[in-house]
Amino acid sequence: MENRTLGDRAADELMRLIRERGYRAGEKLPNEYELSAQLGVSRNTVREALRALASRNILYIRQGAGTFISEKKGVADDPLGFSLMEDRQKLAEDLLQIRYIVEPQIAALAAQNATPEDIAILGDLCDEVEALIHKRQDFTQKDVDFHTQLAACSKNMVMSNLIPVICEGITVFAAMVVEQEFDQTVKSHREIFESVRDGRAADAQQAMLFHLLYNRNRFIEGKDL
Amino acid sequence: MENRTLGDRAADELMRLIRERGYRAGEKLPNEYELSAQLGVSRNTVREALRALASRNILYIRQGAGTFISEKKGVADDPLGFSLMEDRQKLAEDLLQIRYIVEPQIAALAAQNATPEDIAILGDLCDEVEALIHKRQDFTQKDVDFHTQLAACSKNMVMSNLIPVICEGITVFAAMVVEQEFDQTVKSHREIFESVRDGRAADAQQAMLFHLLYNRNRFIEGKDL
Repeated sequence: MENRTLGDRAADELMRLIRERGYRAGEKLPNEYELSAQLGVSRNTVREALRALASRNILYIRQGAGTFISEKKGVADDPLGFSLMEDRQKLAEDLLQIRYIVEPQIAALAAQNATPEDIAILGDLCDEVEALIHKRQDFTQKDVDFHTQLAACSKNMVMSNLIPVICEGITVFAAMVVEQEFDQTVKSHREIFESVRDGRAADAQQAMLFHLLYNRNRFIEGKDL
Repeated sequence: MENRTLGDRAADELMRLIRERGYRAGEKLPNEYELSAQLGVSRNTVREALRALASRNILYIRQGAGTFISEKKGVADDPLGFSLMEDRQKLAEDLLQIRYIVEPQIAALAAQNATPEDIAILGDLCDEVEALIHKRQDFTQKDVDFHTQLAACSKNMVMSNLIPVICEGITVFAAMVVEQEFDQTVKSHREIFESVRDGRAADAQQAMLFHLLYNRNRFIEGKDL
């Protein structure tokens, strides 16, 4: 606590204000003058607080346009310190291990808890991944989106924020150099989607486990080459 | 990428330098003059880069003493955005749900992978929690330390960084108001520790599952009061 500046304390107050007023992603915050008055601190301190919350991805500052609530929901860039892990091969294996543990359970929860709106979005993402695969294009980001939407379907707020961190970690920080698996991905995603849509939790869980283990085996075989 | 400043780019360079030189937690970085020369940027830009990495808990700046590598291993404060989640009761339940899914598997991996040094530290923490409980003192932080060390025993680097985030999230951000459970914690921790020590993965997994579900049931009963 010894290092807490005026700016840190103003950042806490600003957080409280954001929570209380229920700002949504993309909404604009009051300007520096108004925040200075509302928080009872100098404009310099307001600016320091805004920068601190921007660095935590709670808001973003667009020069000249103002300050807005971030879409990133306060999830930091590289929140779990992957960029400091030197052994990228081991990082890939550890991230995959977390996926085998967590994602089959997420698929089961998704089948149990998804709303019709959630399922519609999941179905669209399933189609989009499939379209990219048919065109033999890179589908990495849409694949992350599919798994992230599945986490959103689980209705566990923490999973929703954690899964993209884990999935993107594999592509951004870890040594995943295996070629993309096309046909099996289409089949597995479709099976996961249909199980979730029909509320078949056990099937969803097993389809996800198979999907991840299939990819792990390809990863391990890739290492042996 | 449009918003990347000179400081951001210098921060990336500094990260590379930290990884390449293999600095350990607590080690001191070169001073601003030296970094300015090594990175080929102005001292102002160095200072900006240092502040950015400090805000990510990769290093910390002690006024007058210099800049050091942080013990926090680049895990951000509130990395997953818990402070923005308004429903603290739901957050508690979601965090507990992740613990049931993840920690029994961690216990099994710990039993399989822990080194004698890991086990010695785990045993000490088990003793320390027990001593606090016998004195009827608050053992929240030591409990987090026990579960974090178990994650370290699993040898999954990501789990090591994730588990304290989840466990501390429950006490810091969520609405966990259940009184502490004393006797059952002593018994469960001891059973988990002994299973890990003896390499009994299945027993470790089951002991952890029981430990967490026992606490969940108390939490649910607490809600009904």
